Amino acid sequence: MPHSSPPSPEYRYGFVDDYSEGAHPQLLQTLIETNKTQQTGYGRDALCTLARQRIQAHLGRDDVGVFFVPSGTSANAISIAACLRPHEAVIAASSAHIVTRETGAVEASGHKIIQVPPQDGKLTPQSIRRALDDNWHFPHMAKPKLVSISNATEIGTIYSRQELMAIKRLCEEEKLILFLDGARIGTALTSSKNDMTMRDILELTDLFWIGGTKNGALLGEAVVVKDATLATEFEFFVKQHGSLLAKGRIMGAQFAELFNGDLYYDLARKANGCAELLSQGIVKAGFVLDAATETNQVFAVLPLDLIQRLKDHFNFYVWEQRGEGKAVVRLVTTWATELGQVNKFIQLVQEWTIEKAKSA
Amino acid sequence: MPHSSPPSPEYRYGFVDDYSEGAHPQLLQTLIETNKTQQTGYGRDALCTLARQRIQAHLGRDDVGVFFVPSGTSANAISIAACLRPHEAVIAASSAHIVTRETGAVEASGHKIIQVPPQDGKLTPQSIRRALDDNWHFPHMAKPKLVSISNATEIGTIYSRQELMAIKRLCEEEKLILFLDGARIGTALTSSKNDMTMRDILELTDLFWIGGTKNGALLGEAVVVKDATLATEFEFFVKQHGSLLAKGRIMGAQFAELFNGDLYYDLARKANGCAELLSQGIVKAGFVLDAATETNQVFAVLPLDLIQRLKDHFNFYVWEQRGEGKAVVRLVTTWATELGQVNKFIQLVQEWTIEKAKSA
Amino acid sequence: MPHSSPPSPEYRYGFVDDYSEGAHPQLLQTLIETNKTQQTGYGRDALCTLARQRIQAHLGRDDVGVFFVPSGTSANAISIAACLRPHEAVIAASSAHIVTRETGAVEASGHKIIQVPPQDGKLTPQSIRRALDDNWHFPHMAKPKLVSISNATEIGTIYSRQELMAIKRLCEEEKLILFLDGARIGTALTSSKNDMTMRDILELTDLFWIGGTKNGALLGEAVVVKDATLATEFEFFVKQHGSLLAKGRIMGAQFAELFNGDLYYDLARKANGCAELLSQGIVKAGFVLDAATETNQVFAVLPLDLIQRLKDHFNFYVWEQRGEGKAVVRLVTTWATELGQVNKFIQLVQEWTIEKAKSA
Amino acid sequence: MPHSSPPSPEYRYGFVDDYSEGAHPQLLQTLIETNKTQQTGYGRDALCTLARQRIQAHLGRDDVGVFFVPSGTSANAISIAACLRPHEAVIAASSAHIVTRETGAVEASGHKIIQVPPQDGKLTPQSIRRALDDNWHFPHMAKPKLVSISNATEIGTIYSRQELMAIKRLCEEEKLILFLDGARIGTALTSSKNDMTMRDILELTDLFWIGGTKNGALLGEAVVVKDATLATEFEFFVKQHGSLLAKGRIMGAQFAELFNGDLYYDLARKANGCAELLSQGIVKAGFVLDAATETNQVFAVLPLDLIQRLKDHFNFYVWEQRGEGKAVVRLVTTWATELGQVNKFIQLVQEWTIEKAKSA
Repeated sequence: MPHSSPPSPEYRYGFVDDYSEGAHPQLLQTLIETNKTQQTGYGRDALCTLARQRIQAHLGRDDVGVFFVPSGTSANAISIAACLRPHEAVIAASSAHIVTRETGAVEASGHKIIQVPPQDGKLTPQSIRRALDDNWHFPHMAKPKLVSISNATEIGTIYSRQELMAIKRLCEEEKLILFLDGARIGTALTSSKNDMTMRDILELTDLFWIGGTKNGALLGEAVVVKDATLATEFEFFVKQHGSLLAKGRIMGAQFAELFNGDLYYDLARKANGCAELLSQGIVKAGFVLDAATETNQVFAVLPLDLIQRLKDHFNFYVWEQRGEGKAVVRLVTTWATELGQVNKFIQLVQEWTIEKAKSA
Repeated sequence: MPHSSPPSPEYRYGFVDDYSEGAHPQLLQTLIETNKTQQTGYGRDALCTLARQRIQAHLGRDDVGVFFVPSGTSANAISIAACLRPHEAVIAASSAHIVTRETGAVEASGHKIIQVPPQDGKLTPQSIRRALDDNWHFPHMAKPKLVSISNATEIGTIYSRQELMAIKRLCEEEKLILFLDGARIGTALTSSKNDMTMRDILELTDLFWIGGTKNGALLGEAVVVKDATLATEFEFFVKQHGSLLAKGRIMGAQFAELFNGDLYYDLARKANGCAELLSQGIVKAGFVLDAATETNQVFAVLPLDLIQRLKDHFNFYVWEQRGEGKAVVRLVTTWATELGQVNKFIQLVQEWTIEKAKSA
Repeated sequence: MPHSSPPSPEYRYGFVDDYSEGAHPQLLQTLIETNKTQQTGYGRDALCTLARQRIQAHLGRDDVGVFFVPSGTSANAISIAACLRPHEAVIAASSAHIVTRETGAVEASGHKIIQVPPQDGKLTPQSIRRALDDNWHFPHMAKPKLVSISNATEIGTIYSRQELMAIKRLCEEEKLILFLDGARIGTALTSSKNDMTMRDILELTDLFWIGGTKNGALLGEAVVVKDATLATEFEFFVKQHGSLLAKGRIMGAQFAELFNGDLYYDLARKANGCAELLSQGIVKAGFVLDAATETNQVFAVLPLDLIQRLKDHFNFYVWEQRGEGKAVVRLVTTWATELGQVNKFIQLVQEWTIEKAKSA
Repeated sequence: MPHSSPPSPEYRYGFVDDYSEGAHPQLLQTLIETNKTQQTGYGRDALCTLARQRIQAHLGRDDVGVFFVPSGTSANAISIAACLRPHEAVIAASSAHIVTRETGAVEASGHKIIQVPPQDGKLTPQSIRRALDDNWHFPHMAKPKLVSISNATEIGTIYSRQELMAIKRLCEEEKLILFLDGARIGTALTSSKNDMTMRDILELTDLFWIGGTKNGALLGEAVVVKDATLATEFEFFVKQHGSLLAKGRIMGAQFAELFNGDLYYDLARKANGCAELLSQGIVKAGFVLDAATETNQVFAVLPLDLIQRLKDHFNFYVWEQRGEGKAVVRLVTTWATELGQVNKFIQLVQEWTIEKAKSA
C-alpha cells in the first residue's frame, strides 16, 4: 500500500502507475476515423460488434458474452453482483483490489468478502479451503460462492497454469464460481514466467475481464462471460451500475484495435520489458526486491537517501517504510514508458552505489 | 416510450437520438494533443482541473464541487445515493429517465421513487405537494427527501425560471433537496423559450449535472455540487459506483473544451435549430405535434404510410401508436445533424402531403 | 389511506386494526406450558417442528419449506429478496402494503416495484399484461419477474379461484414468480365469497405466507416456499434480515396451536362475522359502503357528524375525506372483537339515522 | 467458533447457549395480564411506553431514544445502517458477532467491515488506530466511521471503564461513532470484574443496546440512541428492516418487567454465578481455561474422552479442536440454569480426574 499521498504533480517523469498516459496512437486513430459515422447506441454499434468478434475469435469461442465497461471497479463490482444471490459471499486475498482499493463497492452491492492472507499476492487451494472451513455455520454465516483472483496480482506476480488448475478443481468440487480480475492480464500473459494463453484463462475460470485502461486504452475493460444464461442477462447489470455508455463505440473502437493482430500483447510485452530492465538494474546495483518482478511492477527496497535523490528526477510511489533507513518503492511501467528514462533511472541508482562504495 | 425495438442498423441517416455520433472535433483535438503527457490519475489531472476551473468560472462560484462521471445513469444514481439516507425517497415524474430508463438504478441503491404524473413532462409545486400529502404516514412510509427534475425534460420541454423558483420555494419550505438531471441542459438553456442561465440553475437547485454525452462529448457528465460538506465526500460515491475513471483526463479534456468560450451552448443551439426546422416543416405540412418543440426533440403525429416512406430514407423511433392509422414519431437532432438531411426529411413530408391532396 | 394520525390513545373500544389485542388464550397457554423446557435455537426446536408438520399436513405436502418470521414487512421483504436477482422488479397494485406501508423495504433490498392501478384492490391479468407491455425496453428497464398480490387485499376484498388461476396462467406463460401476501389469508379463506382452500393457494402460487399477527398470534408469519431449491436457501435470507429469532419457539408454539384443528380458521371466521354484522347494520341504516365487505374490514361512507358521535365512544380510522360533509371510515374486526361493542356501534348508527329522520 | 453442527436434539441438560429456555416467569405473567387490553400498534402502546420510561429512568436521561427490536442481528444491522452513509465502514474485531454470525447483514446494508484482530475478544485504541492507518487512501477506500464493540465480548470477557474511556477518546478525536452490541450487557455489568454502570455505557458510547433475548425475555433488544436527531429518525430504520412489530407490546411488556426494580441484573448475576461455579470446578480439577471466565460463558480445554463422557449427560458445544487429544468446550449459563445440573457437571469432571489419577 502506498505509504503516502499520491506524488506531487510537479513534473518529473513518472513510474507512478499504468494509467498516466492517454491511449496508444493506433487506438486514437480508430476513434478519429470513425468519429463522424452514426452508430447505434449502448454497445450495439459496429465498433463494439467488431471488437466482440475479434475477442471471441482470439478466444476461439463465438458463444461467450463480451461486455465493455468503463473501469476496473465497475468490471469487478458488476461481475460479482451479477453472479451472487444476496446471502452469498466472495473469497478473495486481503491484498485484492476489491478489498483494498474499491471503496467497498462489493459490499455496497450487498456482499461480504471473506479475506484470505495472500501468498505472493495469490490465493491457493489451501487458503480457499481454509476460508470454506471457517465459514460453514449456515445460515448464520454468509455462504462462500465466488472466488476472486487477480492475474497479474496486485504485487505483479502471476498464476501458473498448474496453480490456476488447482484452484479451478477446488471450485468445481465446491460449486464455487471462479472470477478473474484481469486489469493486468496483458502483462500476466506476456510475462516470461507465464505458461498460459487467454484461452486457458477462459477455460479455467467462469468469468474474467481483459483490462484496457492499464494496457493502452483511454478507458474500458472487456468482461468475458462464459455461462450463456448469465451472458443473456449481464447487460442489465452493466446498465444498472451506470456503466452502459451511450456511445459504447468509444470502448468498441479501442478494443477492436487492441485485438487487431497482436497489439494487446505487444503493448504488455513492452511494459514487462521495461520493468525487467529496471528490476535487473536495481538488483545488479546490490538492492533487494520486495516481490519477484514478473510483470510490469517493480517493488524494490532502497535506502531513503537514494529514494530522495531519485525523487528529484522521477515520480513514483514510496510504498512502505521498512526501518533501518530503507523503504519499498513501487515502479510501474507501461506500453508508453520511455526507454531513455528507464536507463536514466538505473544510472542514478548505480551512480549512487558507486559513490557510497567510494565514501565507505 | 419507443413502441418497438431500436431501429434496424442498416444504414439510413438517423434522427434516432443525441448520441449517435462521436465527439465534436474540437474536443477530439484536445484529447489528441494531450494524449502523450503524463497526468495524475483519477480526476486529479491538469485537464480535469482546467475543466473544473472553467465550469466554476462559468457558474461564477469557485467553491462548488465539480465531478466528472461517465454516463447519465451514473450521474443520477450517484447524486441521489450521495444525498439520501436509507429511509429517504425521491419524488420524480413518472416520465423521468430515472423511472423509465435506468434499470432501477435508484432502487438498486435502496431508495423508493414516488412517482408523480407529469404535466408537459414536468413536476409542479402542486404535484410535489400531492406526493407529500400522500406520503406522510411515518415511519410506515419512506420519507420524501429529494425532488428530481430533468431540464430539458424527457419530452423536450423546459422549465421556466418562474416554474423552477416555485418548486425551489416548496423544497425549501419542506426541507427537500432539489436535484436536476441535466442530460440535455444545453438545449434547455439555449431554447428560444428559455429565460434562465446556468447560474440560475445553480442558484435554484442543490445539485445538478451538465450533460456532455448528448452535447458533443464522447462521454462524460459534470455533476455540480453546491453544498460544501457533500462536495467533500462526493468522490467516494463516484468511486464506489465504479465511475471514477483512472484516466479522468478523457472527461477533463472534453469538458475543458466544451467550456472554452461558448462551445457548449453553440452545439446545443445548433441542435435546437435543426429541431425547430423539422418541427416547423411538419406543422406547415399540416401535422400535429405531440409535445411542444422547445429543444432538440420533435414529437409529431404522422400517418403510418408517411412514416413508412420516411423510414425508407431515415432512421428514427416510432414512439407510440395512436390508432386511426397514425403514430407518434420522435426525431432527435444534435450538434452534428446535417442540414441537408433535415431539408430532405421536410421535403419528403411535404411531397407526401401534396400527393395525398392530389389523390383526394 | 388513513386521513390522519393514528387515533388518540385515550381509551375507547377500538375497531382500529387487527393487532390491538395480544394472543388468543390457547396460544398463550402453549407458550406458558412449554416455557421452561430447553429447546434448540433458531427455529430448530420441537415447537417449530410441530408447527411445520401441522402446516405441511394442512397443505397436504410435506416437501414445502415453512419459515417463521416476526412481521409482515419481514415476510414480504425477505420473500421478495430471496426470489429476485438485482435487475428484477416486482409488479404490484399501487394499493399494496409493500407499496404504501413498508417504508420502502423492497426498494431497500434493491428492487423496483412497478405499480399497477388496482381493481377492487386486486391485480388482474390485464393489468399485469399492461405492466409487462410498458416494461419491455431491456436492458434499460428493470425486468418484471415477480407478481405480488395480497389476499385478502388491503381493502378487504378477496380473489376468486378463477381470478387467481388466470393470474397464475399468465405468470407461467411469462415466467413470472407469483407471490401472495397472506397477512389476512385467514379472513380471505373464510369469507362467505371465498371458493378456495389453502391448498389451492399453494398450488396457484410460488410462495405465500400465512399471517399470524393479524389472526390470533402475538407475532409471527409463516412463509410457505414451494420450490425445493429456494426452500433450501431461504433461512439465509431470514437470518440476514434479522428475522431468525434465537427463541424461534415463540412463533413455533403459536403456529402449532393455530394449526391444531381448525383454530386458525375459527378465529378468522369470528372476525369476518363481526365485520358482516357491522356492515349490514350500516347499510340497513341507509349508508353506502366504499368497498364490498368481504372479510374483516368495513369501509363505509358516513356523515361527519355521525362520525363525530361514534368517535365519542369508539376508536377507528377516518380513512378518507369525501366532501359534502362525508368521509370514509375503516372498521376492523378480529377474533377478539366483542359482540356487545359491535351491537352498540350499530345501535349508535341507527339512533342517529332515526334522529335525523325526525328532525328532517 | 463451534467446531461442529449444533448438538443433537436428543434430550440432555444443556449448557449450549443463553436462549434455550423461554421467558422468566415474571415477564410471562405481565404478558398474560395485559393480553386482552387493546393497545395501540407499532410500539406506541402503554407497555412500550412504560418500558421506555423505566429504561430512561434507569439511565437517568429522559431524552434518549429507546427502540425495541426482535433480535440481536436486527439490533446490530439497524443501528449500523442508521448511522452510516453509503461510503462509510465499520471497524470491528474479527471475532465480533456482526463479522462471524450474522450472514453478512451489515454488508447487505452496503457497508464494509474492517476487521481487526481481537485482544481477549476486545478492540483497543491501538488496534483501532491501526485500522485507521491502513484505511486512509481516500476516496479509494471506504471511510472508517463507526467502531463496533461487544460487551460482554463473544468470548465472555468484558471492557473495563478505563478501556472503554480510551476507545471513546480515540473515537472523539477521529470523529468515529462508538456503538456497543449489548446482547450480553447484563452479564457484563454484573461481572465480578466490572467497574461500570449502564449510565457509564450511555455516557461512553453513541448508541448501544440492552439484550433481552439472552437475559430473560422471549425476544427483544432495546436500542438506546443518544443523539436526538438520529433518535427522531430511528423508527424508520426499524420499520424498513421489518423489525417494527405490530404488537410491540410483546417487547414492551417484557422490558417493562426486566427494568422493574433490579430484575434485569438479578437474572444476569444468576447466570454469572453459575458460570463461575463451573469455571472454578473445572480449574480445580486441573484443567485450563481458554478465556478468562468473566461472565456467563466458560471456555475450557478438556481431554476428548472426558468431553465424550460429559456429552453422555450434557448438551454443549465443542468449540475448537486443540490437538493432543484435547478440545475447547463452551459452556453457557443463564438465569434459568439449574444449580443441580451445574454441580452434576462439576462432579463428572472431578470423578474423571480421580479415575485418571488412579489409573496412572
